[in-house]
Amino acid sequence: MRQWPSYLTGARAGSGARAEVGYAAGMADQNSDQGNTQIRLASRPAGKPGAGNFTTVTAPIPSPGDGQVLIRTRYLSLDPYMRGRMSDAPSYAPPVKVGGLMVGGTVGEVVESNDPGLAPGDVVLAYTGWQQYGVANASHVRKLEPGQAPVTTALGVLGMPGFTAYAGLTQIGRPQPGETVVVAAASGPVGATVGQLAKIFGARAVGIAGGPAKVAYLSEIGFDAAIDHRAPDLAERLAAATPDGIDVYFENVGGHVWNAVFPRLNQFARVPVCGLVAMYNATSLPGGPDRTMALMSAILRKSMTIRGFIQDEFAEALTGEFLQRAVPWVRDGSLKYREDIVDGLQNAPEAFIGMLDGKNFGKLLIRVS
Amino acid sequence: MRQWPSYLTGARAGSGARAEVGYAAGMADQNSDQGNTQIRLASRPAGKPGAGNFTTVTAPIPSPGDGQVLIRTRYLSLDPYMRGRMSDAPSYAPPVKVGGLMVGGTVGEVVESNDPGLAPGDVVLAYTGWQQYGVANASHVRKLEPGQAPVTTALGVLGMPGFTAYAGLTQIGRPQPGETVVVAAASGPVGATVGQLAKIFGARAVGIAGGPAKVAYLSEIGFDAAIDHRAPDLAERLAAATPDGIDVYFENVGGHVWNAVFPRLNQFARVPVCGLVAMYNATSLPGGPDRTMALMSAILRKSMTIRGFIQDEFAEALTGEFLQRAVPWVRDGSLKYREDIVDGLQNAPEAFIGMLDGKNFGKLLIRVS
Repeated sequence: MRQWPSYLTGARAGSGARAEVGYAAGMADQNSDQGNTQIRLASRPAGKPGAGNFTTVTAPIPSPGDGQVLIRTRYLSLDPYMRGRMSDAPSYAPPVKVGGLMVGGTVGEVVESNDPGLAPGDVVLAYTGWQQYGVANASHVRKLEPGQAPVTTALGVLGMPGFTAYAGLTQIGRPQPGETVVVAAASGPVGATVGQLAKIFGARAVGIAGGPAKVAYLSEIGFDAAIDHRAPDLAERLAAATPDGIDVYFENVGGHVWNAVFPRLNQFARVPVCGLVAMYNATSLPGGPDRTMALMSAILRKSMTIRGFIQDEFAEALTGEFLQRAVPWVRDGSLKYREDIVDGLQNAPEAFIGMLDGKNFGKLLIRVS
Repeated sequence: MRQWPSYLTGARAGSGARAEVGYAAGMADQNSDQGNTQIRLASRPAGKPGAGNFTTVTAPIPSPGDGQVLIRTRYLSLDPYMRGRMSDAPSYAPPVKVGGLMVGGTVGEVVESNDPGLAPGDVVLAYTGWQQYGVANASHVRKLEPGQAPVTTALGVLGMPGFTAYAGLTQIGRPQPGETVVVAAASGPVGATVGQLAKIFGARAVGIAGGPAKVAYLSEIGFDAAIDHRAPDLAERLAAATPDGIDVYFENVGGHVWNAVFPRLNQFARVPVCGLVAMYNATSLPGGPDRTMALMSAILRKSMTIRGFIQDEFAEALTGEFLQRAVPWVRDGSLKYREDIVDGLQNAPEAFIGMLDGKNFGKLLIRVS
């Protein structure tokens, strides 16, 4: 179970089968003299990843088999879930093998096709990873319509991050008009969509982000209030921004932001747990006391719901509805997005490491070609 | 919001109004020379309650007003939630005032009625608290049919505890055939019902209880496996009893039982949080490290649902269905129950204190008259 492929299948036939996108590493059939630059996992990080955990290699460009296409990557999506794939801790998805290609969603151009449904020049959403060229089964890519929206949105507001926001909010958070929705990492592609969807659904949206530029951006895109999580008086600011408490907390972060949010959760609050980016590089638990039972006690006292999810779970049932609603919102400007595009595949490791520290501002993409 | 009255209203008209059962303390209209023994809250306990936190007084027997009835208590229900009412920590229900009557569900006999729907001799379910006589609005009691089932079941398997099990399991736990359901405090009226309902629904039921007699009882009533939580190798025994992991954990207890259950929760596990009796007398949190984020991380990784609830929330919609299904189950023996009946209102404090330590064996009731 990976994070992206079933989103791709969800948007298509809906057979329920998991997509198994074959990427080039290890299945290459040399068909060219050109090289295929790839970034692979050199070693598993302990704590924060460093440049040394990645290695760049040049592999042959693979040849597509029957029903497959060769894709030249234009954009590679970098997302926090990839940190999980670098570790071999138990997870919802198998880890990347040491020496294996780093996985990731991509937008690319078909350069060779052995499938009647796709032709060279078609732009597709695929899951071909951190490399210049990849092979995929045609049934496991989604052809994009560049006239409908910029193709990069298939990796952001109209892609996995946007769908994650939509699924978590509509299936778990279920904000009612007038309720208060709080989201952290709010200038990122998931968080920004959560806040704007909350507004579309008639709720009050409060965003938490790092630094004055991101906080200012949240107000620009319509959040009712925005708070800098670096403020020493975060709890007081959050209290001032949520005078009626918090009904939905869309959890992307964990750590000290959670500690500020937790006491303000209302009776019947819903907490979709989508990510815990502040924890991904943690190597040990914080000191005591152990507050687990304080959390359980609050869950009981307030009849709260805490629910972890991966968008996979909802993709088959909900992707069509999402695209039908969200494409018009993006086109009419009621759902805004921001991209942070870094040029060059070779810069992906540094950009990825920075993202885990919140250095990106908007959906982080690598322009590969 | 109290725990019982809306159950009573839920079983009736369903106006959505909260029941406000007037009990005798402070609203008495002396109509008799007989006394009314009451047990009141003398002081708030710090940690484990003691006999000194209660006081016994003799008040006048109250007179019912228009639309009210005077009820002579036959059975008083003792339940863990009452520990919460003794404290003034924030909760879903207001605390009992110091000097106020201890609250509680009762089965009693109408001795005087100012309502055409009820006559002296009728046996009713009410919420008149720890006293010999109470006054209630006729609209806030439920007339029992002693021929249908023993009247004490209205306080147990067919009352709030049984309904709590039914609501938590059908609305949150939702066990599927073949899944594994684990419940702690499994010989109590909620836990025993949870396990038997799980079996009725086609799931595997594993119970955790304290001591060999209770463990043996669980096997008698059909649990697939039963474990003593006092066993030093609880985690290993639980692993052996749940070879396919745990899909539903009905949480009544918290503490070390939670710690044993937590690692065995499966992908998409559901945890209805109904009670945390092991925590109710706690005066401080356990030592570190703080495992809150380990819990959140597991919720994320396993797409788990943790959901606190009070049966109140489901009473209006679900009580009718529950009684319709559960009365036949009780009558045909597929839903068994066990009562632990203590004679004499004066023994209620000691019985209650013992219950918090797991000294009762089955639904704890005080026979008042």
